[in-house]
Amino acid sequence: MRAVVFKGVGQIAVEDRPVPKIIQPTDAILKVKCSAICGSDLHWYRGHMSLPTGFIPGHEFVGVVNEVGNDVKDIYVGDTVVASFSAQCGNCFYCKKRMTSCCPSNFLFGNSADSRSIDGGQAEYVRVPYADATLVRAPTSIPENMLVLMGDIFPTGYFAASRFLKHVPEQERRQTSVAVVGCGPVGICAIATALHWCDTVFAIDMVPERLAEAERLGAKPLLLTADPAATIMAATGNRGVDVALEIVGTPDALYLCLDLVRPFGSISSVGVQTAPLKLDGPSIYGKNITIAWGKCPVRGIFDEALDCLVKVQNKVAFLCSRTMKMEDSVEAYKLFNERKAHKIILTL
Amino acid sequence: MRAVVFKGVGQIAVEDRPVPKIIQPTDAILKVKCSAICGSDLHWYRGHMSLPTGFIPGHEFVGVVNEVGNDVKDIYVGDTVVASFSAQCGNCFYCKKRMTSCCPSNFLFGNSADSRSIDGGQAEYVRVPYADATLVRAPTSIPENMLVLMGDIFPTGYFAASRFLKHVPEQERRQTSVAVVGCGPVGICAIATALHWCDTVFAIDMVPERLAEAERLGAKPLLLTADPAATIMAATGNRGVDVALEIVGTPDALYLCLDLVRPFGSISSVGVQTAPLKLDGPSIYGKNITIAWGKCPVRGIFDEALDCLVKVQNKVAFLCSRTMKMEDSVEAYKLFNERKAHKIILTL
Repeated sequence: MRAVVFKGVGQIAVEDRPVPKIIQPTDAILKVKCSAICGSDLHWYRGHMSLPTGFIPGHEFVGVVNEVGNDVKDIYVGDTVVASFSAQCGNCFYCKKRMTSCCPSNFLFGNSADSRSIDGGQAEYVRVPYADATLVRAPTSIPENMLVLMGDIFPTGYFAASRFLKHVPEQERRQTSVAVVGCGPVGICAIATALHWCDTVFAIDMVPERLAEAERLGAKPLLLTADPAATIMAATGNRGVDVALEIVGTPDALYLCLDLVRPFGSISSVGVQTAPLKLDGPSIYGKNITIAWGKCPVRGIFDEALDCLVKVQNKVAFLCSRTMKMEDSVEAYKLFNERKAHKIILTL
Repeated sequence: MRAVVFKGVGQIAVEDRPVPKIIQPTDAILKVKCSAICGSDLHWYRGHMSLPTGFIPGHEFVGVVNEVGNDVKDIYVGDTVVASFSAQCGNCFYCKKRMTSCCPSNFLFGNSADSRSIDGGQAEYVRVPYADATLVRAPTSIPENMLVLMGDIFPTGYFAASRFLKHVPEQERRQTSVAVVGCGPVGICAIATALHWCDTVFAIDMVPERLAEAERLGAKPLLLTADPAATIMAATGNRGVDVALEIVGTPDALYLCLDLVRPFGSISSVGVQTAPLKLDGPSIYGKNITIAWGKCPVRGIFDEALDCLVKVQNKVAFLCSRTMKMEDSVEAYKLFNERKAHKIILTL
């Protein structure tokens, strides 16, 4: 089969690889229909994350089930399915509580960091462990070309926005103010979710094009370099926002959220934090701040995220507008790395 | 009137002071019945917090209303009342949302840190600003000698324990495991609250006498120096507890909570954090941790905390067993500072 392969920093190639086989009886093999390049793929492409070469990337993919192991019960050959960005067992303490991102038996697609990393979906075929607990049959409520968003970025944006907002009593939700730090594709999905519930969403980024997209959704765009805290304080009676979303993954983005949020406010941080965080004890205590960190449990929240995507699909459809052939992946990665496309979907 | 007065590090005196007068029409003057010495009074007594001398301490007190200003509507002369540890306006954004600890117009009793500090209740009389929003008439559901607990430590312990536990679905609550780091009087109140809901509560401290008290309540005592994390991991299938409570106010206590809590777990931190906190970004992201910091909004949660105290009063009654005369406060502070009493109630 043809597959994208990581060859070294800034280098991928499209090569011939053996078609994957069923290894465990809970596996399925998919014939891939499409896969997406995600912002987190740039971590290894740019060398910010140093990974052994040779793996097949891609943790957002949609395909048709081609083969299933003997223990697969709920997924059938011929089903069109989407996978979550990591495979999870479905049976452990965390999976049963829908905290699937913390399943200790999970496998991350499209990575080679450790023994829990497996080849991904930027290929003609992909092996999916724990098929019953990892794959979801294509719902009819969204167009198939948007389904790839449900593998990672839409649920992640939804998770960022919903963690605190869904606990705000319904009659107070529209008046709840939100700041979103980071307006890449996940930020856009978070903004669309937040605007579905709240009237006032501030969008902060340093890329004007991203801010323009956020503004088209209905958010108030604030350039990072133009003192967004001052604007937000002026707009909120000098209090700050009720909820801030950190979608960048740097300490500075989290510190900005701490400045933007009001006393007794909440911060939801889904950016991949890779550095130490230094927090000021007295001010975080004095402000009664709550911070929730972490990776989205895509499979655990799939149904509620999908319900939301159905409602906001027109707003985020533009994320799926750029399609290229998988054979042209070298060019696709180059364009994506140069930020000439916010999302590229590779088709076969 | 007679009053306790802060004279310098390690020194208080009982002196004559003028009886306070109504200053604002929303004030009330109480004739004090009793006031308590709180662990946080040791901050200035020991000099850990450097405060100007001359103020009257005491932020936990019960009294009878002696006089009210013209704008006081709900509190009457002759009422027996308890105050929250700080006075709040009752009308602002935060007060209306029951986040009374963040009222920007608040006054802290028994302190001299800044212009928002006022004389406290370790005296014959005390002036209470915003009487309607600060005082609560003595409920009949608990004995009057326990009412002083409702000024600070019981609501604070309740707040620590309830912040996350009250959102756990009822059918899962008994199986939820909790670790409490710090078993002073607030810790005891948190343990009593947690045990009211959950079967498994680990109590961690370095003082064996405190652990013995926690054990009598039904908690599992773990000496800080005897690797509590190892015991907790072994007892929880190597996962960690669902919820950890930080009731000390040091970075190390918070870091211990991070070690004790399971992935997707929550930490409630009510200890007064006075130093920088250094968190490991990758592990706090990877573990999907949520931390809520901050000061208890005593008045905002008074009713629910009282409901809980009514139910657990027999367990925490021992905190009110040590009574001394206010005239003997020099000795009382000395005993309290030497940890020869966990709580001392000064009577008039």
